[in-house]
Amino acid sequence: MKAISENDRIFIKQAIDLATDNVRNGGGPFGAVICKDGKVLATGVNRVTDNNDPTAHAEVQAIRSACSQLHSFDLSGCTLYTSCEPCPMCLGAIYWAHLDRVVYAATQDDAASVNFDDSFIYREIAKPMALRNIPFERFDDPKGLEPFIAWKECESRTEY
Amino acid sequence: MKAISENDRIFIKQAIDLATDNVRNGGGPFGAVICKDGKVLATGVNRVTDNNDPTAHAEVQAIRSACSQLHSFDLSGCTLYTSCEPCPMCLGAIYWAHLDRVVYAATQDDAASVNFDDSFIYREIAKPMALRNIPFERFDDPKGLEPFIAWKECESRTEY
Repeated sequence: MKAISENDRIFIKQAIDLATDNVRNGGGPFGAVICKDGKVLATGVNRVTDNNDPTAHAEVQAIRSACSQLHSFDLSGCTLYTSCEPCPMCLGAIYWAHLDRVVYAATQDDAASVNFDDSFIYREIAKPMALRNIPFERFDDPKGLEPFIAWKECESRTEY
Repeated sequence: MKAISENDRIFIKQAIDLATDNVRNGGGPFGAVICKDGKVLATGVNRVTDNNDPTAHAEVQAIRSACSQLHSFDLSGCTLYTSCEPCPMCLGAIYWAHLDRVVYAATQDDAASVNFDDSFIYREIAKPMALRNIPFERFDDPKGLEPFIAWKECESRTEY
């Protein structure tokens, strides 16, 4: 694990300032910055309510913007700075984007104190499906594997 | 938990067919349908590589589209049908969107058999941060709580 550097301090402060400014602009209290080679590549702020998009968390917005800048779905070599510990959705997005490293300021508990309770979702993930608050039901359709068979047979597929 | 209905069979088949067609259109082998009151509200397919957006999973795309249709960030009353068991990112999105119910066809193991290994991310979530493959580091910035203080003080905030 890398030690916190002077650059880290600058970028995490920027993520926090974005979060505070976003509240003044009608958004949620979250901000994120993605850097590569010590330079800011993209930023994001929470726009869930303004955009009517429950996936528009700061981290997801920053990942989408950084990928757009790089014309790539792969952010290897990049660091994400976020004003708050990522929720499970953003954690998943971070893994799919192959970011190198995540630095965050406020914790899950801090977020829960203002009613952003993603610890609930972390607990739900750990439960067997049948015990989850939202029912997840499998329907074993005989066609269920057809998309994967088509994928394996598709010579022009782009793996990721 | 509701029993699988005739409508469920129709909509899960539609999600599977979307997934298969998407492979033929250069996308990943995943499709999703969101229904409300027995009618299709929105669909989504995996466009990660085409859109250079690692968050463009079928479920996330369908959630964004359904929210756009309803002009709301809340999909209470809706069911998500997806060709494959949702990954942790999509599971998070499903909780944030407050969907009522999820029905899926193929399993995590089926997806892993064609190298879409989200079971790795499920295992990572369960680990202590210090043991994760992507390092998550906390920097306890003295300004870290400022966004949440601004949020609590903001009388016009939209809670969600």
